[in-house]
Amino acid sequence: MIATPYLLYLGHADDPVGIKTSRGLAVFRPESCVGEFRHDDCPLTLGLPRLSLDEAVAAGARTLVLGIANAGGVLGDALVRDAVAALEAGLDVAAGLHQRLADNPLIAAAAARTGRRLHDVRDAPAGLPVGTGYPRAGRRLLTVGTDCSVGKMYASLALVAGLRAKGLPADFRATGQTGILIAGAGVPLDAVVADFISGAIEQLAPARDDGGWDVIEGQGSLFHPSFAGVSTGLLHGAQAGVLVLCHDPARPHVRGLPGRALPTIAECIAANLQVARLTSPAVRMGGIALNTVSLDEDAARAMCAALAEEHGLACSDPHRFGVDDLIDGVLA
Amino acid sequence: MIATPYLLYLGHADDPVGIKTSRGLAVFRPESCVGEFRHDDCPLTLGLPRLSLDEAVAAGARTLVLGIANAGGVLGDALVRDAVAALEAGLDVAAGLHQRLADNPLIAAAAARTGRRLHDVRDAPAGLPVGTGYPRAGRRLLTVGTDCSVGKMYASLALVAGLRAKGLPADFRATGQTGILIAGAGVPLDAVVADFISGAIEQLAPARDDGGWDVIEGQGSLFHPSFAGVSTGLLHGAQAGVLVLCHDPARPHVRGLPGRALPTIAECIAANLQVARLTSPAVRMGGIALNTVSLDEDAARAMCAALAEEHGLACSDPHRFGVDDLIDGVLA
Repeated sequence: MIATPYLLYLGHADDPVGIKTSRGLAVFRPESCVGEFRHDDCPLTLGLPRLSLDEAVAAGARTLVLGIANAGGVLGDALVRDAVAALEAGLDVAAGLHQRLADNPLIAAAAARTGRRLHDVRDAPAGLPVGTGYPRAGRRLLTVGTDCSVGKMYASLALVAGLRAKGLPADFRATGQTGILIAGAGVPLDAVVADFISGAIEQLAPARDDGGWDVIEGQGSLFHPSFAGVSTGLLHGAQAGVLVLCHDPARPHVRGLPGRALPTIAECIAANLQVARLTSPAVRMGGIALNTVSLDEDAARAMCAALAEEHGLACSDPHRFGVDDLIDGVLA
Repeated sequence: MIATPYLLYLGHADDPVGIKTSRGLAVFRPESCVGEFRHDDCPLTLGLPRLSLDEAVAAGARTLVLGIANAGGVLGDALVRDAVAALEAGLDVAAGLHQRLADNPLIAAAAARTGRRLHDVRDAPAGLPVGTGYPRAGRRLLTVGTDCSVGKMYASLALVAGLRAKGLPADFRATGQTGILIAGAGVPLDAVVADFISGAIEQLAPARDDGGWDVIEGQGSLFHPSFAGVSTGLLHGAQAGVLVLCHDPARPHVRGLPGRALPTIAECIAANLQVARLTSPAVRMGGIALNTVSLDEDAARAMCAALAEEHGLACSDPHRFGVDDLIDGVLA
């Protein structure tokens, strides 16, 4: 587990897309974020108090989260300098960049010198088991998608909040870097060795008997030729009773592969249920989470209504219209 | 590439099942095997000349292949001693054990001292690409199965031999440890990180335009809850025009998972074709390779005939009855 509360790093960032992870933390774990750290040339803000490293420590911060993405996921000089300063100020440091914190000699030396911890959330855990598919207790929901990056993490987190609002215990089970930083734990599924995909998910969402829900963050898509193996193992390991399908109607082609068409929603529902049935014979689709950022409000409402009618499922944009309908569909 | 010819290691082995890899090499690459190395207490033989390390080097051997499996895949003292002696005699050493040769200090030191090469065929290659699924030239066949370990490697190798006997260029593309030692190259798919499964296969069987075939060794099964992610990525990366389904009618349950039933052949054919169509829309099933070791000859012939009739496909046991019918089905 990554120690909280967090200080969120913006650094010198000037691209709103590049601070996606820091923003995700500010949105979904506001109670765990004491402030933001940015240099004078950074035009962005998360709306949190701007704190120096020492001010953050005084405010109780335990970990500096480098929640930014830069070209190639490398650790630039400024990032290294700030990470070292944070360690020396008394903070742990967490990141999900391709280059590992622990592999940078300056950062590794500073961590050793100060006794602080480094969290590279792209590292797969050691000693993962092989999956079995044997039935286990508990209520599990998995978000699936018509493509990569269509809003599965956002929908999962919104569904957790919705279930909790109904008084039901619910936990977010993270499978990607941003999700892991938000949850403070999880498994970076894209870094797991192929034979352990389903086993990693069985370990991430083990049997539970408190009547609560594990909401598991989906990855990839059964129709993405690069990553469908990950999605398949995730479906088998999740052993979910309910799936929620995430979709972005503005996506012109499968992400990263111009020329490859998206599946239809109907074939995506059918294929995901078919694969999921191997370990969860009674699985059903609980609803459709639509990412309507490309549509005006009237068009977004019309599309939700049309898809709900066409597929006989609850359909909503969790960000724009909330998850009440989806929660009803999940609990039906 | 692993240098040939090979000296095949039996050591102190007394379990015929444990020398499966050495036997596979003797059967499928006899022209590359100069002899076998065994101690006086070894009751087994591959029918090759028994050679000392020095005799093997004199006979032209380049690599000692530790083609045995022992409990836990560990490097026992005798194995380490023999590996060091082989390096000192002038041989490279190759193995597919869980414990890596390069991680054993005595073996690593001997390799450094002698300048010989170590091949740990469980190591995934570095720098694998992410798959794209974009169409590529060439004729590709992938073996799939109703379960793990039902004879996919054997069927693949027999099909390569059958295609070559027809005068067609054909190459075996290995995806498992034994297959890699037989082929001298390949990718150990179970050691590849999840995001690169399909990309590894696209690299293993790239575009070819000589009219020849790449016959790709299948792994796992779409119906095995531990490993279906691997099988899915393999189907997408292979982009095969033809599949051949491998089946063992004596298997009581899915391998390693008592209580989990095998799929029917019909549902296995349908599911594999459905997944394969994502990157190979015109894919078809070329035939059924049956492993009839559990049946007497009459029963085996009757079952082949019955399955051929039921599914409208060529069906044969490649080991017992050859691959002529299957090759006709593949080329149809």
